[in-house]
Amino acid sequence: MQFLGYIAAVCTTISFLPQAIKTVKEKDTSSISLGMYSFFTFGVFCWAIYGIYIGDISIILANVITFIFAAIILAMKLKYK
Amino acid sequence: MQFLGYIAAVCTTISFLPQAIKTVKEKDTSSISLGMYSFFTFGVFCWAIYGIYIGDISIILANVITFIFAAIILAMKLKYK
Repeated sequence: MQFLGYIAAVCTTISFLPQAIKTVKEKDTSSISLGMYSFFTFGVFCWAIYGIYIGDISIILANVITFIFAAIILAMKLKYK
Repeated sequence: MQFLGYIAAVCTTISFLPQAIKTVKEKDTSSISLGMYSFFTFGVFCWAIYGIYIGDISIILANVITFIFAAIILAMKLKYK
């Protein structure tokens, strides 16, 4: 069942890649919520720090990757809002 | 430090609420990625099942709430794409 945890982690992590690509390519952020990406980017950052604290490599890895994608989307939203 | 985990969980969970509200209100999903919400909604669903399996109430709660918001956004994307 640990396998399901890995599937879940991979899906929620890589899901932000197509959004980041779309946003960078189209430079359109009209229907993206600034509130969502503000909270989310900060939250994922906290998850990464928490992962470092408890020494869980899966939490660190998943959240560092997600943070990069979320930060790109947030930056695009701030630039093109 | 457990506190940081709670902050992280609350931020990443509630972040999808402003996006869901914005999407339902404006019916504009042009800059939202279908790929992202397909992977993300499925991933969060897997997280919830995984949480039930390992009996972790925080994982269950956070992911059931996030699943509801993500499913609303995905449904709007499919309806108004």
